[in-house]
Amino acid sequence: MIGIGVIGFGYWGPNLVRNFHEMMDSRVLAVSDQRMDRLALAASRYPGIGIMQNPSELIRSPAVDAVVIATPVSTHFQLAMEALRAGKHVLVEKPLAMTSEQSWQLIEEAERRHLVLMVDHTFVYTGSVRKMKELIDAGEVGDLYYYDSVRVNLGLFQHDVNVLWDLAVHDLSIMDHLLPTRPRAVSATGMRHFTQEPENIAYLTLFYDSSLIAHIHVNWLAPVKVRRTLIGGSQKMIIYDDVEPSEKVKVYDRGVTTESQQAHSEVVYKMQMGYRAGDMWAPQLDLSEALKTGARHFLDCIARCEVPVTNGEVGARIVQVLEAASRSMRDRGRLIELDTLKVAA
Amino acid sequence: MIGIGVIGFGYWGPNLVRNFHEMMDSRVLAVSDQRMDRLALAASRYPGIGIMQNPSELIRSPAVDAVVIATPVSTHFQLAMEALRAGKHVLVEKPLAMTSEQSWQLIEEAERRHLVLMVDHTFVYTGSVRKMKELIDAGEVGDLYYYDSVRVNLGLFQHDVNVLWDLAVHDLSIMDHLLPTRPRAVSATGMRHFTQEPENIAYLTLFYDSSLIAHIHVNWLAPVKVRRTLIGGSQKMIIYDDVEPSEKVKVYDRGVTTESQQAHSEVVYKMQMGYRAGDMWAPQLDLSEALKTGARHFLDCIARCEVPVTNGEVGARIVQVLEAASRSMRDRGRLIELDTLKVAA
Amino acid sequence: MIGIGVIGFGYWGPNLVRNFHEMMDSRVLAVSDQRMDRLALAASRYPGIGIMQNPSELIRSPAVDAVVIATPVSTHFQLAMEALRAGKHVLVEKPLAMTSEQSWQLIEEAERRHLVLMVDHTFVYTGSVRKMKELIDAGEVGDLYYYDSVRVNLGLFQHDVNVLWDLAVHDLSIMDHLLPTRPRAVSATGMRHFTQEPENIAYLTLFYDSSLIAHIHVNWLAPVKVRRTLIGGSQKMIIYDDVEPSEKVKVYDRGVTTESQQAHSEVVYKMQMGYRAGDMWAPQLDLSEALKTGARHFLDCIARCEVPVTNGEVGARIVQVLEAASRSMRDRGRLIELDTLKVAA
Amino acid sequence: MIGIGVIGFGYWGPNLVRNFHEMMDSRVLAVSDQRMDRLALAASRYPGIGIMQNPSELIRSPAVDAVVIATPVSTHFQLAMEALRAGKHVLVEKPLAMTSEQSWQLIEEAERRHLVLMVDHTFVYTGSVRKMKELIDAGEVGDLYYYDSVRVNLGLFQHDVNVLWDLAVHDLSIMDHLLPTRPRAVSATGMRHFTQEPENIAYLTLFYDSSLIAHIHVNWLAPVKVRRTLIGGSQKMIIYDDVEPSEKVKVYDRGVTTESQQAHSEVVYKMQMGYRAGDMWAPQLDLSEALKTGARHFLDCIARCEVPVTNGEVGARIVQVLEAASRSMRDRGRLIELDTLKVAA
Repeated sequence: MIGIGVIGFGYWGPNLVRNFHEMMDSRVLAVSDQRMDRLALAASRYPGIGIMQNPSELIRSPAVDAVVIATPVSTHFQLAMEALRAGKHVLVEKPLAMTSEQSWQLIEEAERRHLVLMVDHTFVYTGSVRKMKELIDAGEVGDLYYYDSVRVNLGLFQHDVNVLWDLAVHDLSIMDHLLPTRPRAVSATGMRHFTQEPENIAYLTLFYDSSLIAHIHVNWLAPVKVRRTLIGGSQKMIIYDDVEPSEKVKVYDRGVTTESQQAHSEVVYKMQMGYRAGDMWAPQLDLSEALKTGARHFLDCIARCEVPVTNGEVGARIVQVLEAASRSMRDRGRLIELDTLKVAA
Repeated sequence: MIGIGVIGFGYWGPNLVRNFHEMMDSRVLAVSDQRMDRLALAASRYPGIGIMQNPSELIRSPAVDAVVIATPVSTHFQLAMEALRAGKHVLVEKPLAMTSEQSWQLIEEAERRHLVLMVDHTFVYTGSVRKMKELIDAGEVGDLYYYDSVRVNLGLFQHDVNVLWDLAVHDLSIMDHLLPTRPRAVSATGMRHFTQEPENIAYLTLFYDSSLIAHIHVNWLAPVKVRRTLIGGSQKMIIYDDVEPSEKVKVYDRGVTTESQQAHSEVVYKMQMGYRAGDMWAPQLDLSEALKTGARHFLDCIARCEVPVTNGEVGARIVQVLEAASRSMRDRGRLIELDTLKVAA
Repeated sequence: MIGIGVIGFGYWGPNLVRNFHEMMDSRVLAVSDQRMDRLALAASRYPGIGIMQNPSELIRSPAVDAVVIATPVSTHFQLAMEALRAGKHVLVEKPLAMTSEQSWQLIEEAERRHLVLMVDHTFVYTGSVRKMKELIDAGEVGDLYYYDSVRVNLGLFQHDVNVLWDLAVHDLSIMDHLLPTRPRAVSATGMRHFTQEPENIAYLTLFYDSSLIAHIHVNWLAPVKVRRTLIGGSQKMIIYDDVEPSEKVKVYDRGVTTESQQAHSEVVYKMQMGYRAGDMWAPQLDLSEALKTGARHFLDCIARCEVPVTNGEVGARIVQVLEAASRSMRDRGRLIELDTLKVAA
Repeated sequence: MIGIGVIGFGYWGPNLVRNFHEMMDSRVLAVSDQRMDRLALAASRYPGIGIMQNPSELIRSPAVDAVVIATPVSTHFQLAMEALRAGKHVLVEKPLAMTSEQSWQLIEEAERRHLVLMVDHTFVYTGSVRKMKELIDAGEVGDLYYYDSVRVNLGLFQHDVNVLWDLAVHDLSIMDHLLPTRPRAVSATGMRHFTQEPENIAYLTLFYDSSLIAHIHVNWLAPVKVRRTLIGGSQKMIIYDDVEPSEKVKVYDRGVTTESQQAHSEVVYKMQMGYRAGDMWAPQLDLSEALKTGARHFLDCIARCEVPVTNGEVGARIVQVLEAASRSMRDRGRLIELDTLKVAA
């Protein structure tokens, strides 16, 4: 039985508590939050649980084997480091930390102590993303041409991070999982519309060694919720629409045929590239709650001393892209090469 | 009765011929195209019409008062200049020319000769765009925050211009019409996936003097057709979805309330910005064919010696943005300031 | 504090327990279910709660003031009667009972004992239905022409009742709430596709004194979930689509204009009726959980000795239509007049 | 070269003229319409064509080999009979005639004179219907359980026929083509909402020898256009949505598994029927204009002395169902057995 302590009982914390509560091999022992009303809610839902305002108290509790951190980003590093130093496994909400430097410190601390450090990149554990990985890894999609994602809604403004850190982090984690290569450079643009608030709309282009191009559009001020990704390859194209109640992943047997380019000449005009329009196919997806799958994976990694799929290094890579993107955005699109040395280290 | 000659009977030409054919005060006298099969098709549909391979023959024809040019972009300048010099009014397909320099030569030629020079920015004449202009001009939308457009499909590759010139030109013409200010700088990214072909996917950010930001995503390689624009303002938000059979324009009474920011403090956290979620409203739109409205406008401008809404200067402004965007794209997002002197001249 | 006992912890029971658990003025004291695994689940989620297999034990428990029944339809009458006779208020899942005769016995028992008898016609408590009632009552829709509902999905087959009793009951409860008049006669058709199972697809037409016509299509074997109602009136038309994440209710300013019929003659052909196509409007809806609103209403009725909106008589009227419809369906559409005496009594 | 005369240049006539005009082996020689403005329009579009108000003149014209009738239903019989008696092949708009008696007279006349008599059941010639026929004939769908179609819009009221004859005729022609058996009985309900006008909303159930059930909902007064058919079988389910711009036919690998019914007992409850939820597949469809395919087929049948797919007998069968349905509708759902003798004759 793995003892779990959850820090933060705001928007996402209750889902974490519920999932770990319903696992057979874990028990949520304590919940910590600065707000008394949130603690009262936790106590009403889970009568036997320990509640406390001070997260350090939770971290020090000897029965707690693993600490789950669901607090604002700016507090991740300190809480995670404290938990690791106390010898606890850590599951931290995305993004891992405010800087890649902090991220690497956490990774090193976890490695030194042989503790599990996992980032809750939830989407990686959805049936949709797992199915797309299957298809891409099997070569079904062919050479990847582009990855384009839109993630907009009328959302909760964050105040400690811009919209990239809040929303694009999801796309970056999915891309890190799905795409065979790592981005080499980024160019981002964006805008803040409220004084003293971070950027609430942003556009991020990622460049790779190949001709793959990726783009993410995030926005806290959109009238409707859109969660739509287009993936284009030489063999197939995918639409992943997470707002759809079913058929979230559609695979299109469509593309360009270029064989006739052999006959290219000045005379042949607009005709040398053909279009292939074939069937569409929407595979049945595993509809289990992603967070349950992720929580299950965290417990398994602890029990088996294994490295999680969304481990600290994944988290650090994504923080590094977010850092570079924020820098590029401040310079209105200036290309920022990603420092690959650290990642490779 | 205005005599019309149409050069180019490919994809769009037949629509132009049909519309001018059905007007009471114009008559299509001649069609020109290099391809004999296209000329045969034109002759079969319009038995009385003159057909010819040589566009100069059409331009020189004395009964032709106005020349409509629906050929590849690279030929626009030469054909339009020839027509203007022959004293003909000109309606040219978008974009006006390959360079802003060429565009300005055409404008000057037309002005010198008191001829109508109009660019067929068709979307400006749709009921959807006209309704949005009405709403924005009346202040319904409030201060503009962003303009975001996606225009993708599995489309005909162009070979003489990249995807910006083919698809983003539509968005630029709509924005030029709708937005109260002109862009100051652009940053664009994109990629070509086929050797010797131009970029087939592109992302373009436009900066303005205000905090307005605009973004256009165009792609010739998408599995489905998307034509969706989000416009965000301080009072209302608009979704303009041209693929919808009806209700193409939806106006959302949604936004952010910031008055509670008065109570801002370190302790109040994530709470000082409220969200306003109100009704949605889809105004009834004029569903007339936009090209018919545009063709009508062209004839009216000729008859009344008036300047068209989408005149040469509009066309030149858009060509200038396309030039700058293409340059930025080659430099992977480098910011290009738009030279405003010429436009102001 | 009102003590609640919930009988049945299958599909819907957990939602009832959750809602009454989170109310300030009620406490769920006991849950009963024949299945030990369901009781174990209830105990794990609500550690302090009493669990028991025998519903009579729950009903007899002195601290239980109100009994909530979420069991198969065939058991409703017996359990509800036992609870009423034990002096308990009763909230019973839809439909109220297997026959209108049983329904009337329950009504009389509740009246005699001054107990609240409420049927959980949940949809009546949704923001969507409440908004539509507002619009219809205010005369916005004009004279009602038709009410057409489709409620299909790949659903759980019921074994004790046909698909009308399982799905159409929702539409009948919404119609009973929204429409100003009561149906006079029904004609139903349907089919069973599995031996020894009840009808799994059904079509039900309801006739009224006016020219209003209503129709319900229900199906347990559809590939997708559809929840769509069209309401046509002389002034406006409504689409109520419960599968939509937002904009569930759309009001169309569309209809027929008949004034030109004055000019009717043999010569005027197909032209005397005009079509009015105006704006569409989607009012912002209260998105609170309907069951919470319903549970709140049940507790209020108990506290204030008031009659619920969805009281026993509403439940009985709907059971009567279901009886008549089932009879008509067995006779392949034979018209069944609804006996209005009993309802009026 | 087959000489074509088209009677009626209203809503559909222009499409017929256009298609026969563009065929290589036919020529439209004459158009007839009572309205001078329609004839003027025809003359302007097709300068060389003969125009006349009197259809008999067109029918008598010796160069006319085939007469195409696109007039109100009430005139079909007389015009078609006149054309057949004049030795002309006939393509008549749906429905074939006002009564099945008239239909059989036309069939006999055509047979006696070895002339082609075809009904323009256009949908039968769409890529969508052809693909569904392929799937059903190949046994992909399994045993057919139900066929359910909704065809509603804010449409042109007809004055000589009710909404079944105007809209349901499409569904009946598709069903006649797709389904392996013929309906045995019908029950219909409906309503008229405007004095002296025919029923503008109708519901029609069709019964077969098997457990197949079919239902059609048609409505001239709906706020939006819906064209949606659900087909349920023991192996697969189909959604055919003709309003979708692409992916009009979706095939769902979903259904019910009943093998576990072996373990059926009183104790096992709601568990003996399983649900199978598999992939969805949208086959690429031939998107050619259906009317072009139909017109091609008509010319081929003339040239090869063959019987059209949508011949007179198909037309008569459908008229017979419409007659029975109208009768049932007047009696509010009374079951009408279809007289099968005549059809078999």
